[in-house]
Amino acid sequence: MTHDITLSLQEAQALSRRILRHAGFGTGHVEAITQSVVAAQRDECHSHGLYRLLGCVETAKMGGLDPQAVPEVIDQAPGIVRVDARYGSSLLAFEQGLAPLREKAERNGIAVLAINHCFHFSALWSEVEALSGMGLAGLAMNPTHAFVAPAGGVRALLGTNPFAFSWPRPGGNPYTFDFATSVVARGEIELHRRAGKSIPDNWALDDRGQPTTDPTAALEGAMLTFGSHKGSALSTMIELLAGPLIGDALSHETQAANAAGTGRPCHGELVIALSPKTFLGEQCEAGLLHAERLFEEMLGQGARLPSQRRFQARSRSLKEGVSIPAALYRDLQALAGEDGKAD
Amino acid sequence: MTHDITLSLQEAQALSRRILRHAGFGTGHVEAITQSVVAAQRDECHSHGLYRLLGCVETAKMGGLDPQAVPEVIDQAPGIVRVDARYGSSLLAFEQGLAPLREKAERNGIAVLAINHCFHFSALWSEVEALSGMGLAGLAMNPTHAFVAPAGGVRALLGTNPFAFSWPRPGGNPYTFDFATSVVARGEIELHRRAGKSIPDNWALDDRGQPTTDPTAALEGAMLTFGSHKGSALSTMIELLAGPLIGDALSHETQAANAAGTGRPCHGELVIALSPKTFLGEQCEAGLLHAERLFEEMLGQGARLPSQRRFQARSRSLKEGVSIPAALYRDLQALAGEDGKAD
Repeated sequence: MTHDITLSLQEAQALSRRILRHAGFGTGHVEAITQSVVAAQRDECHSHGLYRLLGCVETAKMGGLDPQAVPEVIDQAPGIVRVDARYGSSLLAFEQGLAPLREKAERNGIAVLAINHCFHFSALWSEVEALSGMGLAGLAMNPTHAFVAPAGGVRALLGTNPFAFSWPRPGGNPYTFDFATSVVARGEIELHRRAGKSIPDNWALDDRGQPTTDPTAALEGAMLTFGSHKGSALSTMIELLAGPLIGDALSHETQAANAAGTGRPCHGELVIALSPKTFLGEQCEAGLLHAERLFEEMLGQGARLPSQRRFQARSRSLKEGVSIPAALYRDLQALAGEDGKAD
Repeated sequence: MTHDITLSLQEAQALSRRILRHAGFGTGHVEAITQSVVAAQRDECHSHGLYRLLGCVETAKMGGLDPQAVPEVIDQAPGIVRVDARYGSSLLAFEQGLAPLREKAERNGIAVLAINHCFHFSALWSEVEALSGMGLAGLAMNPTHAFVAPAGGVRALLGTNPFAFSWPRPGGNPYTFDFATSVVARGEIELHRRAGKSIPDNWALDDRGQPTTDPTAALEGAMLTFGSHKGSALSTMIELLAGPLIGDALSHETQAANAAGTGRPCHGELVIALSPKTFLGEQCEAGLLHAERLFEEMLGQGARLPSQRRFQARSRSLKEGVSIPAALYRDLQALAGEDGKAD
């Protein structure tokens, strides 16, 4: 029998802060990580929610990320802000790069935030939504660890390399998507394994490079990209732009450290911001209204917009708080240490 | 019985120039279009090769594009060059925007070329390869006409919206991909129809929004995107960035004119250039060599890189010239008018 514990967003934040402080995270990291995991929990993205704190604390203990890292913000070029996360979480690096990124995007029309040497465990939608919340269109991508074979290949080489985009909508939630370039999330295969179910034959290869429907063989082999060679191409682009272009690692170079649980070497992240105001000037409002026609046509024919379910969850959580399994709540409390009962 | 005519690249160019001049294209357009169709023919991309001149000339006759259009280059912002193609071919607009795009990308690290009101009939790989040929990474995308249903939808709304990327490789052909976000090219369904073959059930919907294996029903209905909701999301992003962001049309707004063969309203195109030199400074060469490790790993496990077949064709054509069906050659000669026999 399982039951859930309901927390208000404030209670969830307080719990997260206690855990992170107890694990030795610096104040900036405590806030940035808390904002991220509570936003994910609020949107019912459970795997990026409070649950993620367990791994985050464990990785800090193993020395895989530096909980006290002080990001260094570098004005690389008129259109590039670079933030060296110095082996800390990507989230504080993103937060510190956001204002200069906005300033550069609004001045130039387009700008990049390149984050180096970051430990990355968060979803990208919250970052691109930070941009659309400022009236910018945002793109984000990063390599991960080598779990995915390139199209036509036989071994894991590419990461699950997420790609996210958000577009500002007047008076409403933004248009946002955030997807892995692997055909499914790795956790999905793990769920099939636990349930004793086979997987479709286009999800993964076994360790001899043959398509498999056995989830255990898949986890020991390589996942496949979504959309065959097109998804593989997109994933390769992400490796290049969020790797060598910014002087950072490729997914296959971080795999050994990931498998060992030590986190390092970490990798990079690339965020691109485009400013509709700079593109359109006085026609900006008209341009954003023009985009609405596309969404109206989609909804009018019964298509869903990506993230709709997440926005519904958000609306619900803002009123009712968030629910997590009691067992997870106990595990989190145990990490909160002596000050576990007070904020 | 069919046979082929072999032309040297110079002969192919001369033929293209005669056709375009005879159809009243201005000198700049003659050169830009000739470079594009002969490059495609050289790479054995037949549908974008000399064959494309037939449609190009026909559209000019119908008033769908202006063969004498003079593009206007606008310095929109430090990171944006905008070119109003004024209802001419996109190719001359791209050519005129290329130098300022390069200059902005090298100064800022990233820059955009936004082309407005262009008639678009060329493949994007030649444009992103123009960028990688200058040592830049290039991305290009454009809406087309509404042939594709969004994920979960029932009617055509999105274009086949191509997405292309090229990355400079030291001493060799670039890493380039260029794919439609529809599951296949529309011509592929047409080929199945002609051959009396059924199509896979994930390619298209009939006019009632139901999956169909009948190519005729598919052509009257809507194509699907590659990679299900992920491809649909990517296609939607292309609509937004190469449409409303640059003050230009969505695919469904150009559909009626396309069906009528009049071409207008035309649409836009978005090109993004990123400068490795500006990102990496003195580490640029090392960064490009670092990227090579990814390609080596791919090739080492038997995966192909996209465009490899095209580069092989290029190498062959540079030596042996290009071959086109005799019937196409006759049709092209007929368009070349009185000066059809001399350059």
